Amino acid sequence: MVNTIEKQTGTAFQLKKGDTLKVIDPQGEQVSDMVLFNADDKRERISSGKTLDFENTILISKGHHLWSNRSHKMMEILEDTNGRNDFLLAPCSPETFQILYNNPEYHPSCFENLYTNLSAFGIEPDDIPTAFNIFMNVQFSADGELSVDPPKSKAGDYVVFEAKMDLIVGLTACSAEQSNNYVFKPIQYEIISSRH
Amino acid sequence: MVNTIEKQTGTAFQLKKGDTLKVIDPQGEQVSDMVLFNADDKRERISSGKTLDFENTILISKGHHLWSNRSHKMMEILEDTNGRNDFLLAPCSPETFQILYNNPEYHPSCFENLYTNLSAFGIEPDDIPTAFNIFMNVQFSADGELSVDPPKSKAGDYVVFEAKMDLIVGLTACSAEQSNNYVFKPIQYEIISSRH
Repeated sequence: MVNTIEKQTGTAFQLKKGDTLKVIDPQGEQVSDMVLFNADDKRERISSGKTLDFENTILISKGHHLWSNRSHKMMEILEDTNGRNDFLLAPCSPETFQILYNNPEYHPSCFENLYTNLSAFGIEPDDIPTAFNIFMNVQFSADGELSVDPPKSKAGDYVVFEAKMDLIVGLTACSAEQSNNYVFKPIQYEIISSRH
Repeated sequence: MVNTIEKQTGTAFQLKKGDTLKVIDPQGEQVSDMVLFNADDKRERISSGKTLDFENTILISKGHHLWSNRSHKMMEILEDTNGRNDFLLAPCSPETFQILYNNPEYHPSCFENLYTNLSAFGIEPDDIPTAFNIFMNVQFSADGELSVDPPKSKAGDYVVFEAKMDLIVGLTACSAEQSNNYVFKPIQYEIISSRH
């Protein structure tokens, strides 16, 4: 069953070890922020620093694993039809819009959409780590400068992840203008159980 | 007063808002991992993702701030005589040596040296975030590949940080062979109080 995350919203769900999660960009150019927690001990969570260290690259794609703060494999990326994801930048938050984009008004954010949906699992705002930003196109120059460019993903592009432990997953359709080429779109996902 | 962190060890201490911390590489080519917590609420901690986001660069140096997971400024970098630091890779841990360097034996690590020293402040191993790796020379290529090169720091190079809030600081002399050009050396630091 394909589920839809409406634009500028999010969801949270459990994934069993061996299950696969397919995250789809149905219209193209739409980012999805993902965070992971060990379902049996939520203090274990996805770690950008550990993943970049063990995989030895900034660009995480097919064949790589997503690692936890305890140096365990949480997911393996089985397929990635787009190939560009970001694991450098934090989920957009109210302060992203206030400080970085100079917008003092209320603005939906991945951070809010992650912690409100993950609260059902006892996860608090301070527990939200740097997310794996699926389809996000952050370019870096030789001098380290970052630019958030339009996603390269086309309609129907997808990434398939296999859970390497029982997981709690937070997943969004990203709410930041610049990250999504200034048009907010939905994200779709499908869970394929390994148990028949 | 200049304090010395002996090779492959660490320390933890409090820093008041307005105080400055000078971290010195006395012999050259030695990395120091630093983590920060809000002294009034330890759930607020240094965030690589937030820092890279707000500063818009991978290479954090003079003039930049170190930001928290709550989007607050924790420190400002006032001086940096070396200019190369890393904020991509997690502190070296027992698993770094087991998995990445294929060494099954006990090995000192920044992770152990951070959590054992920070335990006096009620901080647990799972609370240790990706550290700001002072003097660490991680090169990245256009295709994202990372390489841990010998530090560029010369004997006496230093970085000066100003605390923007009351902080708990964890600081090490890094224990990983490759990060320190295969020679373990001490790190020195000096706290200059803003209160006279």
